[in-house]
Amino acid sequence: MGPHPAVADVRRAVRAALAGLPSGSLALVAASGGADSLALAAAAGFEAPRTGLAAGLLTVDHGLQEGSAAQAATVVRLASRLGLDPAEALRVEVGRTGGPEAAARDARYAALEGAAERLGAAAVLLGHTRDDQAETVLLGLARGSGTRSLSGMSAESGLYRRPLLELSRATTRAACAALGLDPWDDPHNADPRFTRVRVRERVLPVLEGELGPGVAEALARTARQCREDADALDAWAESAFASAQEAAREAAREAAREAAREAAQDAAPEAGGDFAHSDIALAVAELAGLPGAVRRRVLRRAAVAAGSPAGSVSSAHILAVDRLLTDWRGQRGIDLPAGVVAVRRYGTLILARKPG
Amino acid sequence: MGPHPAVADVRRAVRAALAGLPSGSLALVAASGGADSLALAAAAGFEAPRTGLAAGLLTVDHGLQEGSAAQAATVVRLASRLGLDPAEALRVEVGRTGGPEAAARDARYAALEGAAERLGAAAVLLGHTRDDQAETVLLGLARGSGTRSLSGMSAESGLYRRPLLELSRATTRAACAALGLDPWDDPHNADPRFTRVRVRERVLPVLEGELGPGVAEALARTARQCREDADALDAWAESAFASAQEAAREAAREAAREAAREAAQDAAPEAGGDFAHSDIALAVAELAGLPGAVRRRVLRRAAVAAGSPAGSVSSAHILAVDRLLTDWRGQRGIDLPAGVVAVRRYGTLILARKPG
Repeated sequence: MGPHPAVADVRRAVRAALAGLPSGSLALVAASGGADSLALAAAAGFEAPRTGLAAGLLTVDHGLQEGSAAQAATVVRLASRLGLDPAEALRVEVGRTGGPEAAARDARYAALEGAAERLGAAAVLLGHTRDDQAETVLLGLARGSGTRSLSGMSAESGLYRRPLLELSRATTRAACAALGLDPWDDPHNADPRFTRVRVRERVLPVLEGELGPGVAEALARTARQCREDADALDAWAESAFASAQEAAREAAREAAREAAREAAQDAAPEAGGDFAHSDIALAVAELAGLPGAVRRRVLRRAAVAAGSPAGSVSSAHILAVDRLLTDWRGQRGIDLPAGVVAVRRYGTLILARKPG
Repeated sequence: MGPHPAVADVRRAVRAALAGLPSGSLALVAASGGADSLALAAAAGFEAPRTGLAAGLLTVDHGLQEGSAAQAATVVRLASRLGLDPAEALRVEVGRTGGPEAAARDARYAALEGAAERLGAAAVLLGHTRDDQAETVLLGLARGSGTRSLSGMSAESGLYRRPLLELSRATTRAACAALGLDPWDDPHNADPRFTRVRVRERVLPVLEGELGPGVAEALARTARQCREDADALDAWAESAFASAQEAAREAAREAAREAAREAAQDAAPEAGGDFAHSDIALAVAELAGLPGAVRRRVLRRAAVAAGSPAGSVSSAHILAVDRLLTDWRGQRGIDLPAGVVAVRRYGTLILARKPG
């Protein structure tokens, strides 16, 4: 008799996620003790030795709840029963930056990465399911910040793998029940002060009820497609950014040669080559031929390259810079975060940090 | 004293939408008599003569409700008070194809286009607001069919203009109140058998309540960005489709020349040129270098060009064809709708209609 179908589903997903790892390497499961991470840990403990790998476990004690250290110790004890070694509880200090959810997440990921490096792990497995993905897409939708924010979490990103991203939370619960594992219900997962909890408990059930079952699946599918779309557009923007820079460099060299000929001197860069090496210069003619979605990605890329922090560049900033290209009436420079200014000078768009 | 701010907002939006129309031409407002279309009609009646245009009104009597003819007649009478001439009620027969909402929409748009052509109109103005746009995005999200289905309704598409797409329903209601217009509340707009009504009445209020106000605005912003992204990717796919076809043609010509040289005969197309002229042949090498999001758009485009109806080609179809490129193990041809089959033959992907 084979394993319970839910157990088989989780194992198959974990097997696929482990497939790319070098033989003999270590995969660490990040586990809270909830149903998702417990099902993941059990599957990793089962699959890893069968594919020539080692599997261990990390659990993070955020120190935010009464008894969190005891809960972490319980998860660590469970690890040996599931065939996971090493197993460690990582105690973290949660700061305050960006709200309680973001601060806890930052502390958690920093601890996981530190431990993974110390233990020489090749991957850290996270237990996010399709339901988590659906919640992430809805949160991105509410921000209204486009394709990238709708693309949710990736199945593989650096050290992290998310083997369960195509499986439902119901599957991980069923797998735990079939294996006789008793998942811990984190009280934070029911605390309506957290936006994600409200999305899970109140928004998604209404969507499922009014639009029909399968909404979580549709949201996860949306995430996958938006991620692919965003990746393709980012690749296009990256190559257009390089071309527009090269064309501006060539124009500056040409202008310098022209000036040198005219003045019969060695170099006279005033006519177009007078921006510092660290500034970003883009040829307007190269940008003009791009679709808006790509051109605005190039401009965002350029603002960051010129020194504006990525998170602080708004759509309004980018649209204002874009008007230097699409609605040029000799307007003055556009101020961007961190003292970067965007100016158009003849056929060149320059993004430079103001001296100061 | 100027007009009420809501009236001014609607007029400004209508003025911008009319700006591109040739002087002396006719714009027709499609009006149900609801707040959105009434505010639109009033603004068009005010703005059109001031910008050298004529404005008329069309109202569609779907014949689905008791008293629908009388309601249509009321809207037509109102038109002259608003300075709109001509004004017509169009009686349509609603079929059954695609469900009640789709059938009514199809009948409505067919009648509007027929009347616009008969009256020589340059544009038909539709009263969709930002709230309608938000509903459309949520409906697209529930389908899970990607960036294009998230891009909602366009502000301008063929004959149609949607001047109010950036304004809220609250603004059109306020404009009607300020102008002493008494909007008609279509009972269909409150009938929970319609998915859109449930989205409006039950889903959006929950989203606003749990995620904060501004969700409708965020959804409309998402629509705009997804539309731009989808347009850019479609443009890339269109040019990649042409390149891959040209490369396949060149390879076929080269193979034919090669065969001709070897057999010392005039033409021997067996070596690669044996697909019919109407078939689609794409060079695998050209497709292989594209990002997945673009490659799969090219494949969808090719399936439709080979004869599969656009609406019937599923993601599963496209993924199966894609595996002929990304996971080639000599597999057999992939059946697509309407008897089209996709096969890989050496370096060429061929999509052809099966004889029969």
